[in-house]
This record gives sequence, C-alpha cells and structure tokens, in this order.
Amino acid sequence: MKLSCLIEAQQLDVANIFFLFAKAEELRKKQERPLQGKILTTLFYEPSTRTRLSFESAMLRLGGGVISTENAKEFSSAIKGESLEDTARVVSKYCDIIVIRHYEEGSAKRVASVSSVPVINAGDGAGQHPTQALLDLYTIWREIGRIEHFTIALVGDLKYGRTVRSLCYLLGKFHGIKIIFVSPASLAIKEDIKDYLQRHSVGFEEETNFYKALPQADIIYMTRIQKERMQEGEYEMVKNRYSITSESLAFVRTDARVLHPLPHTEEISLPLDVEEKDPRIAYFREVENGLYIRMALIAHLLEK
Amino acid sequence: MKLSCLIEAQQLDVANIFFLFAKAEELRKKQERPLQGKILTTLFYEPSTRTRLSFESAMLRLGGGVISTENAKEFSSAIKGESLEDTARVVSKYCDIIVIRHYEEGSAKRVASVSSVPVINAGDGAGQHPTQALLDLYTIWREIGRIEHFTIALVGDLKYGRTVRSLCYLLGKFHGIKIIFVSPASLAIKEDIKDYLQRHSVGFEEETNFYKALPQADIIYMTRIQKERMQEGEYEMVKNRYSITSESLAFVRTDARVLHPLPHTEEISLPLDVEEKDPRIAYFREVENGLYIRMALIAHLLEK
Amino acid sequence: MKLSCLIEAQQLDVANIFFLFAKAEELRKKQERPLQGKILTTLFYEPSTRTRLSFESAMLRLGGGVISTENAKEFSSAIKGESLEDTARVVSKYCDIIVIRHYEEGSAKRVASVSSVPVINAGDGAGQHPTQALLDLYTIWREIGRIEHFTIALVGDLKYGRTVRSLCYLLGKFHGIKIIFVSPASLAIKEDIKDYLQRHSVGFEEETNFYKALPQADIIYMTRIQKERMQEGEYEMVKNRYSITSESLAFVRTDARVLHPLPHTEEISLPLDVEEKDPRIAYFREVENGLYIRMALIAHLLEK
Repeated sequence: MKLSCLIEAQQLDVANIFFLFAKAEELRKKQERPLQGKILTTLFYEPSTRTRLSFESAMLRLGGGVISTENAKEFSSAIKGESLEDTARVVSKYCDIIVIRHYEEGSAKRVASVSSVPVINAGDGAGQHPTQALLDLYTIWREIGRIEHFTIALVGDLKYGRTVRSLCYLLGKFHGIKIIFVSPASLAIKEDIKDYLQRHSVGFEEETNFYKALPQADIIYMTRIQKERMQEGEYEMVKNRYSITSESLAFVRTDARVLHPLPHTEEISLPLDVEEKDPRIAYFREVENGLYIRMALIAHLLEK
Repeated sequence: MKLSCLIEAQQLDVANIFFLFAKAEELRKKQERPLQGKILTTLFYEPSTRTRLSFESAMLRLGGGVISTENAKEFSSAIKGESLEDTARVVSKYCDIIVIRHYEEGSAKRVASVSSVPVINAGDGAGQHPTQALLDLYTIWREIGRIEHFTIALVGDLKYGRTVRSLCYLLGKFHGIKIIFVSPASLAIKEDIKDYLQRHSVGFEEETNFYKALPQADIIYMTRIQKERMQEGEYEMVKNRYSITSESLAFVRTDARVLHPLPHTEEISLPLDVEEKDPRIAYFREVENGLYIRMALIAHLLEK
Repeated sequence: MKLSCLIEAQQLDVANIFFLFAKAEELRKKQERPLQGKILTTLFYEPSTRTRLSFESAMLRLGGGVISTENAKEFSSAIKGESLEDTARVVSKYCDIIVIRHYEEGSAKRVASVSSVPVINAGDGAGQHPTQALLDLYTIWREIGRIEHFTIALVGDLKYGRTVRSLCYLLGKFHGIKIIFVSPASLAIKEDIKDYLQRHSVGFEEETNFYKALPQADIIYMTRIQKERMQEGEYEMVKNRYSITSESLAFVRTDARVLHPLPHTEEISLPLDVEEKDPRIAYFREVENGLYIRMALIAHLLEK
C-alpha cells in the first residue's frame, strides 16, 4: 500500500521496504530530476545538521527545492504561543512535503494529522527515527545480499538507543534472523522490544561478552556510547569492552560487516587506512545509502 | 506605474493592487518557472521564520534560487561596524532581489536607497510590513468578491498592531468601506490613522462591544493579543471579550469571513473541525494567498 | 595543472590564475547553468555570512544547489565528539563540493585529506582565505589591465591581517611589482612575508607616512582596523593617519584604484556620492568580482 507519511517504522511492511529499495537502486543509477518545482521543508525544532543535510541533499538531487529552519523552537510563532498543529498547517501551505525533527515524542504524528502535505519523521524525542532504521536495513541488504537468515549483533547502549529499537521493529518483519544483544547488564534492551520479537518469532539472546558475539555475527551494529547517560565507571568499562579496535576487528568474520548510525566516538577506534580500505567497515557506505533511501522515500511520497 | 521596490503600503495604488491580484491568480493556475537563474536574498536582522519561509517558497515556486540569513544582526560585518548601507551594497551584488526584515523602523528604506536590485520590506520594527497588508486585501477580494462596499471589523490590539495600521492605509484607497474598530478603550486605534481615513472619506466607528460589531461585518479581522504589552487584568478581559469562540462565531453572518494575520493564540479558540470546515474561517486560505501574492510581487519587480 | 582543491594561495600558479580569470570573464558574459544537479555544501564552523552568501550565490548562478550550515560548531556531531575528518567524510557523501570555514588553522587541509569531493578553504583561523586573495588579484587585473609592473600600497594592520599575507603570496608570482607596506611600526608586516618576497625578487619598502605612499601607488589596498587588537591610543592614531577620506583621496592618482576586502569601518570615510561615482573607488566592484571568480573556481573544480 502506498504510504502517505512516514511517522514510525511499524508502518513499513515487507512490500513497502522492497519497493523503496528498488527505487533507491534505480535513483542511484540514473540522474533524473523528477521533482522539479516541488518544495521540501525541513522543520527542525532542534538541530540535527547531519540528518537535515541528508534530507536536503536528497531533495536537491531529485530536482526539488528546499526551505529550512533548524531553529523552529525559536520560531517566532512558537514563542508567541501558536500550537504545533497551527504551525504545521501554515508550513504545509508553503511546500509539498515536510520533514520534521522535534524534541517531543509524538510530535511528528501531530503534525501529520493536520498537514495538507506528506510528513516524514526525522526523529521525535525518545520516539522514532524511521528513516534511520530503513537505511540500516537497506545497508544490510546491500552489504550481505539479503535481509533474512542472518545473525546481527546489536552492541552498546541498548537501553536508551533509539536506533536499535526502531531497527528491531523492522527486523521483526523478516525470517530467519537471529539477534544478539551485546551490552553490559545495566544497559540491556528493554522488555517491550523482547516481547515484540517473541511475538514475531525472532530469535534473540543477550550476551555481555563482546568477543563471544563477534565471530557469530554477519552484521555488527555498533551504537554510540553516550557518556552523559552513564554511571561513573560505566563509561570506561563500556568503552574498553565494547569497542571496535584493530584487536576486536580480528574476531569479525571476513564476510561480515560493521555498521554504525554515526557519529561514532570511542566505541570505534581504528587506524585511518583500515577504516578506509577494510571492506568490513560499512558505515560510510551506510551514510550514502541513507541519501538514496531518503530520495526513494521522498519520491514515493510525492508520486501521484 | 511599475514598482521598483515595495517599502510601504502607501506606495501601492489601485492599479498596482489589481495588477498584482491578476498576476497572483495567473500564477495560481499554471506552474511556470519564469525566474530560473535569478536569486533572492532573505536578509533578516531578526528571526521571522514564517515570513522568511513564505518569501523563499514564493521564489522557489517561480523557479529562482534563494540565499538566506536569519541572523544578519550577528552578521560578521554588522559586528565589525559596517553600515547597513554598505551591507546592502554588498548583498545586492550577490542577488537579483532582497527581502529585508529589520528591528528598526526605516531600515528597509535605507537599504533600498543604495541597493542595485529591488528591495521588499518584510517588516521593519514599528514600521510597515506591506506584503501582509497586501495579502489581507487579496484575501478579502477573493473571499467576498470585491474590495469596495463592505464592512470590516478590526478587532483586538489596535494601538500597537502593525498589520491593522498598514491595512487601513490600503483600505483608504477604495470606496464604500466602513470600518468598525473593536477594542477596549485602552487599546484603541491611534489618531493618525483616524485622520488618514477621514482625509480619504472612509467611514469608521469605534466599538467596545464585540458582539454588537460581529453581525454587521462582512470581514472580521482578528489580531493577536500580546500579553506582554498589556496591563494586568487587561489581558484576561480582552481574551474573554474579544475572541472568536463557538459562541461568538454564532454572531458572524454566514456569508462573512474571519481573517487573522497569524499566528493566533487565545483570541481564536475553536474546535478543530470548525476551523477546518466552516467556510467562514478564512485564515489558512489567507496564508496560501500570501504565497501567491508574494510570487506576484517578486515576479513583477523582476520583470524588465 | 588542474586543481583538485583550493586550500592555500601558494597552490595557484600563473597558469591557474589566468585560466580562472578567463573563465570568470566568460561566466560574466553568458548566463549558463552548467552545474545543474550538482550540490555545494557550505560547512561553516563560525559565521561569515558575507563569504557564505558569496559562495552560495556563485553555485546557484551556475545552476547548482546548496546545502548549508553556519553553525557547524554546534553540529550535533561535533558536540558528540566526532572528529572533523569523520564529519568531512559524511558531508562529502551528500554533495559534490565542500566550502569550509573553520576557526582553526589547518582545518581545511584536514577536511581535504579525507573528502571524496573537492574542498575550498573559505578561511581557517589565522591560516588562509585563498579566494579572497584571488579576487583581489582579479580586481587589480580588471581595474588596471595587468598584474605586472605596478606599485601597490598595502595599508593598515599588516601584522595580523590574513588577506594581506595571502595576497603577498600571489604577488610573488608576477614580475615588476613594487610593494609599499604602509602601517605604524607596531603593526608592520612580519619577517616571513618579507623573506618570501625577497626569495621571489619582489621589491618592497616600508613606509609609515600614508601621504608619502599614496601618490606612488597604482593600487591602494586598504585593510580593516581591528580596534580590539590594538593598544590604547593606537586605534585613534591609525584611524586618523591611515584612512581614505576626501582629503587623502586627493593624493591618489586619477588612474589609481582603492581596494578593500570589506567590511570597512572608519579607515574609509567618504561621502556617499564619492563612494558611488569616483572611478578610483573599486571595492564594490571587487565584491562582484569575488562572485565571478568563485563561480570560475567552482566550475573548474567540478569539471571532469
């Protein structure tokens, strides 16, 4: 079924996902500019320059134009007490599609409920960031040639990490996947995700030993360690035990891939030439995949 | 006569106004991109995201490109002591048209005096915001089919409201208009506007009772209540007595229209479905009209 | 030899320089849009609105698109501890060319070392700003018809001024040039530049008396007085003794030209009509030249 907005990963079904992959592959090959005359708004209530630039680049590559604010919180209208819904109604008159980033969970849904144009959620608080999950999945598919019958290690802060949660929702739609959650006990994945996976018959296990998980995985999905969320001592421990270094990379299979939603900090610490030349290091290709899958999504939402 | 800049509402005569309406209607119908290769600068010395996005969208719809700053006050050059005139001279080398927003009255005129390209005033301090007045007038014309022989209630803070003042200048150019100024005595319209209307033979009266004015008006033009400008107690009083609610809307004629320059706060408080479906609620159409009339103005100023 | 990036003025040789001048002249004459579908990123770690708008305008004039941040220091990724190199790798996936401005010397080089697309240095700390030097040189060439056999007075704060230093590097590549460094002794040009000029057989002298230098010069290159860098009393002295006024302008030859990288403050203080009509005043033409030479450079770097 054709999507009218993309607010959360659960909206995507297997057909949508493969349709978008096909579209992304097509856009990668040919330079077309089908959206000439169309306008995308990046309506950002908090800065996320990387995500904003990715969406804006996607729209420009498609031939469209962009209007933008990264400062919508200071939106004169927001200060003057206008509701988010009214702002959305107004902005939707100025453009053909809205990409919203907000600090409050549920905001993207509120915007979509009143907007006269399609809306894409580019992250709303502790909520979702569905295009990140989509580009992660697209990268897996491109890198290992399938999105079923593989083992994925999800590593790091699984308790608070938004991307891991959204990715699990998508993984639940495919067959023969085994997840290894790798984290210290204090940052383990929450019960709701485990319940979801059980309901969808996705096998998973929890593992605190990074080195035991590494050789089993086709995909090692690293996440950023957020120092500020951790107890004293916890940060050093995570950084030392759960990071990709020249040493731990030796435990990664030659046909496996290391992904990361980026930016990364000390949880990945590799020499420059390894990062640039080792085929297992896939996260910069992941960035590029993000561009194409967002192009595909925008084009899909704006097609008649 | 062809305009070279738009700095204040008084510059517009009846011919200009109808010419711009005609152009806006034309642009609404067909997707042309006559300004390919042209560049508009939004040079904003204070943020006004809504206004900025509206102008930028207008330029992109016309096929042109946009360069932009909402932070011109922190303009490195401003900090370094460059005059506004020199900034204008420099910026005018980079583009084909400048839209300026400034916190000081008279700034737009100063910019226009040295710019080598057309300049549009998008609000300068307590001064003018002529495209707002123009889009209000265009909305009246579209909604009731004429801009003469009608009654308009101007409601709210008439003392400080910039939009009401600019709109009065335009209304003075047409025949058979009756204005009802509706406000508490402490926020009444100033004498200079009353003098202007008298000189231009526009009938007006002042009314403190909102409910008496409502049934007489073809157009109810609401304005935002700015709490911070009011005495203690005044705010509550205005909010309760001068607001459009389900109750007061019952006093509005079925062929009348409610306008508002937006953003609105508590001076309009209607259920969502009324706001979206009642044909009398015209302020979201007004937003869209703003886009088309700004397209018309930009196209007009850039035509040879 | 074709450039792949422009990081410092020393990279430019005489052939490059004239090639870019020829390209700029060509672009000035015809409205072509050869870069349709290409994207430029302005990645600014500190605001420099004028420089940013100039590059963005150049890209739009060439038919390309722009994505932009003037706030890269607050780049969510920068805050999260990502390296500049990783940011560059990511951003280079989103675009075809990067223009970087950074507060730290050497940053542009670091970005260029990992970027998969061409990089232009738009100023890095106390380092270089090579397109400024290039546009200065282009202006000299356009204004007096040659870049050899002329006398140039470089005036003001020669100790800290980045533009004077970069310009000297370029002047060293041409013949028959005589430089007069005009400044108070406390703000004299540094030894490294004098050494460079000696090695390249460029004649120079130092002069503290502005009025003695003026009649000798074909080009008077003024620079901004930065009050905050000066000793008490020094500012007033410089302002009074080293400024272009109606009085000092009388000492400038009729075929000479006054340049300034802008913004200027009190070191130039002329009546409006003189600034606008006296043919010797060349700094607003210099701004326009900056646009064309940047167009030429961008087009050159993106050509196959």
